[in-house]
Amino acid sequence: MFTPPFGPGTRIHDITIPFSEAVPTWPTHPKSAVEPMTRIAAGDRSNVSRITISSHAGTHLDANWHFIDDGRKLLEIPLDRWCGPCWVAAIPEAADVVEPDHLEAAAIPPGTERLLLRTRNSRQWADWNGATPIPFREDYVGVSPAGAQWLIDRGVRMIGIDYLSVGPYGPANRITHTLLLGNDILIVETLDLSRIAPGPYDLVCLPLKLAIGDGAPCRAILLERTA
Amino acid sequence: MFTPPFGPGTRIHDITIPFSEAVPTWPTHPKSAVEPMTRIAAGDRSNVSRITISSHAGTHLDANWHFIDDGRKLLEIPLDRWCGPCWVAAIPEAADVVEPDHLEAAAIPPGTERLLLRTRNSRQWADWNGATPIPFREDYVGVSPAGAQWLIDRGVRMIGIDYLSVGPYGPANRITHTLLLGNDILIVETLDLSRIAPGPYDLVCLPLKLAIGDGAPCRAILLERTA
Repeated sequence: MFTPPFGPGTRIHDITIPFSEAVPTWPTHPKSAVEPMTRIAAGDRSNVSRITISSHAGTHLDANWHFIDDGRKLLEIPLDRWCGPCWVAAIPEAADVVEPDHLEAAAIPPGTERLLLRTRNSRQWADWNGATPIPFREDYVGVSPAGAQWLIDRGVRMIGIDYLSVGPYGPANRITHTLLLGNDILIVETLDLSRIAPGPYDLVCLPLKLAIGDGAPCRAILLERTA
Repeated sequence: MFTPPFGPGTRIHDITIPFSEAVPTWPTHPKSAVEPMTRIAAGDRSNVSRITISSHAGTHLDANWHFIDDGRKLLEIPLDRWCGPCWVAAIPEAADVVEPDHLEAAAIPPGTERLLLRTRNSRQWADWNGATPIPFREDYVGVSPAGAQWLIDRGVRMIGIDYLSVGPYGPANRITHTLLLGNDILIVETLDLSRIAPGPYDLVCLPLKLAIGDGAPCRAILLERTA
């Protein structure tokens, strides 16, 4: 019997952070701007806004080409690499960086292709109203190069995390990204997993169809089967 | 038995146009810009791009607030309004505007909540490479106010079309939008339906989670059950 992806029996969890100029941005990237362009209240015909963002702002994904100059660009990657069964794993709140020991202890089922890591990073999204500016913080939790190697060895194909970057701040950042993208493990960043219990879901993560190719803002949701 | 939304038995049709500065834009909106910000080939650490767009550029959706100043903003609209069973109807290539007669003749099943109209507009997306600039054209096919009233009377809740605007160019544009959005019929615009046969699909249309609320660029796909 066919079960439709949406509708009765399915609960939608939106794991995307709201997009405004209040979102934290990577220190070397320009601030995101989301501003009124025309407004009915000002006598215009309709409400239209202007958006200025980097391709790695807010909830977004990294194509291989982001760090690997001969790697695949966004439009060369099939959409089902970002959509399908996934596992949400909880990393202990005490962890400052995700190491192989944390991943070993997280009860990740063998064969998991899409893995989302809920760390203490998610706490800051939990009560955010989307309007109060959140400054960038260097002490976020990322995956160490050894953790990245664990993901490669375990055959993970896509990794998601709940802050702006999958790698820790500093020199390890580039190493983690290069290990992952160089081994064709795709990346989704700045997810809000604060309300997501560990376990199995269907991930639907659809990026803007940018022709330029290094990555793109996306909308990411988890479908939970309830019946 | 649970059928996963992605994977064997499901074919994904991407109905989003590629996003670059080559996309046509509404005459009163600024040109979209998608440009390199950092490039490994230029000595930078990674490839990152800068995007400047209006909230109604490329494949995008309209929230009620786009034309109705006390209407719902994007984040007030549940995601499953844009996601779920939908019907693709073919409007004859000869039609200059979508009128009730065309809709009557299109064999749209009773109870259809999400309806996508494939008109001759889709022809121009068929062979486009995403890079050659396409100028805006005023003679696109839109839905007349009488057509909009037909959709209201038939209980349609979401309408998609294959050019930048659901209403024809000129004074009728505002009337069609106001009729639809004022009666809580949501809108998706600039779809590429050139390769889509009429019939039933599951629509997955996920917009950027813009906090500003009049609409947003989106990624739209159709899922076709093949087994």
